[in-house]
Amino acid sequence: MMVIDSHAHVMEPTAKQLSFMEEAGVDKTILFSTSIHPEKVMDLAAFEQEIRRLFDILAGNCKVDERKSSMQRSTVELCDAIKKHPEHFLGFGPVPLGIGEYETADWIEENIIVNGFLGVGEFSPGSGSVYLLENVFKALMELGKLPVWIHTFHPMTSADLMDIADLARKYSTVPVILGHMGGANWLDAIKIAKDQANLYLDFSASVTAIAPQFAMKELPERCLFSSDAPFGYPMLVRKMVERVSEDEEVTKMVLGGNISRLLNID
Amino acid sequence: MMVIDSHAHVMEPTAKQLSFMEEAGVDKTILFSTSIHPEKVMDLAAFEQEIRRLFDILAGNCKVDERKSSMQRSTVELCDAIKKHPEHFLGFGPVPLGIGEYETADWIEENIIVNGFLGVGEFSPGSGSVYLLENVFKALMELGKLPVWIHTFHPMTSADLMDIADLARKYSTVPVILGHMGGANWLDAIKIAKDQANLYLDFSASVTAIAPQFAMKELPERCLFSSDAPFGYPMLVRKMVERVSEDEEVTKMVLGGNISRLLNID
Repeated sequence: MMVIDSHAHVMEPTAKQLSFMEEAGVDKTILFSTSIHPEKVMDLAAFEQEIRRLFDILAGNCKVDERKSSMQRSTVELCDAIKKHPEHFLGFGPVPLGIGEYETADWIEENIIVNGFLGVGEFSPGSGSVYLLENVFKALMELGKLPVWIHTFHPMTSADLMDIADLARKYSTVPVILGHMGGANWLDAIKIAKDQANLYLDFSASVTAIAPQFAMKELPERCLFSSDAPFGYPMLVRKMVERVSEDEEVTKMVLGGNISRLLNID
Repeated sequence: MMVIDSHAHVMEPTAKQLSFMEEAGVDKTILFSTSIHPEKVMDLAAFEQEIRRLFDILAGNCKVDERKSSMQRSTVELCDAIKKHPEHFLGFGPVPLGIGEYETADWIEENIIVNGFLGVGEFSPGSGSVYLLENVFKALMELGKLPVWIHTFHPMTSADLMDIADLARKYSTVPVILGHMGGANWLDAIKIAKDQANLYLDFSASVTAIAPQFAMKELPERCLFSSDAPFGYPMLVRKMVERVSEDEEVTKMVLGGNISRLLNID
């Protein structure tokens, strides 16, 4: 059985990321780009500066041009990490929101397809702005139907989850990963996923162990183990999956089988 | 070293609660009453009914009379559990909000002091209604300054945290436990606790391991290990504390020493 951490951000130094994986018995990690490096700052004031930037991004408060240049830099960093350890790392690449349909398609061709990324995200449109994702779905219908990874924790709401479900229904051949499984709204996340077969549930940042426990019972083939490192530890999330699982076969699916199938990893 | 789970709800059957404790190497658990028993329902529809009731309570949507009779029932259940296993369980008792100053004092005398509870809560006034807690603080100034345990996760906001900090400043001899450490607003929770010595940080339902990691560095003597069982597993939270801690002495304080000191447990 291959264990795959299906969502972690690029950490510095890479040795630290690899040690997190080794501690958890993780064979491969799907890396996502990052705008900040919380793992590098040690005091609270510096950390707060970093995290406030992240909160601005998660709230969708950044200007498009700023986001684009930041993404270009972080994509380079992401590619570098993968190239150095291709046996350990695979990648999802970032795509800016709020640009036109053709520009979105161009970005995906030039930054996602060219770099061999297996999916797109993490998207954080901000509450009330899920509609901004539609250009991404439109482009992906032409460009390979790569999975779309969306942050659905705070500040995203239950209403935002419903908007995501509508998009997933409209573009039902594009897989959509509900990052952090809806946060406090995890019950809604499970319910919309039960209704819509292209929705997947990501386990990072679970607020209660009951959420993954029910998800694994209801949708064993669509639950995905992930750490969201450096915000979580793959070892701790793996222990949670193993603790709450009621079936060893399901544990294997969640820890690696499901994401392998979704991304055609062998 | 005594390991104390400083916040869990009464589970049924008690044997399950004791097995959670044994698995985690927990010596004592501070039990809180519960209006629902999610650990007893097995299918999603029944679970949803239970959890919607909880969300209503957390949002402060229940009528006072309804809350009072529900609390009387759940207090009996709590007392029963403690009486059966006094070596394993201690208790915090619930107090209704939205009643007058004298009625609050009467309730605390008749339901908290008489039953030997060591603190009051869990309080979930709902966002924007922290002011409802003031009668509890007023009564406690006369009745023993027991610690006050407040739910500060979703739906509570950063503004609610500031209101709690104001109350803690005004009644600075009453200890206040920020349950779930502010949820997504954990950085604000750490900051207000640094400014106000009677604020404590509860580790259950942490959204990121970085939150307890920073909390333990900044305020080692005011961090409290807890599981929020049945919503979390003490074993998993203990592992998290041990993993993120950078100092064994601090680990011991967080796993039991701090709450022992706060509640005079020997």
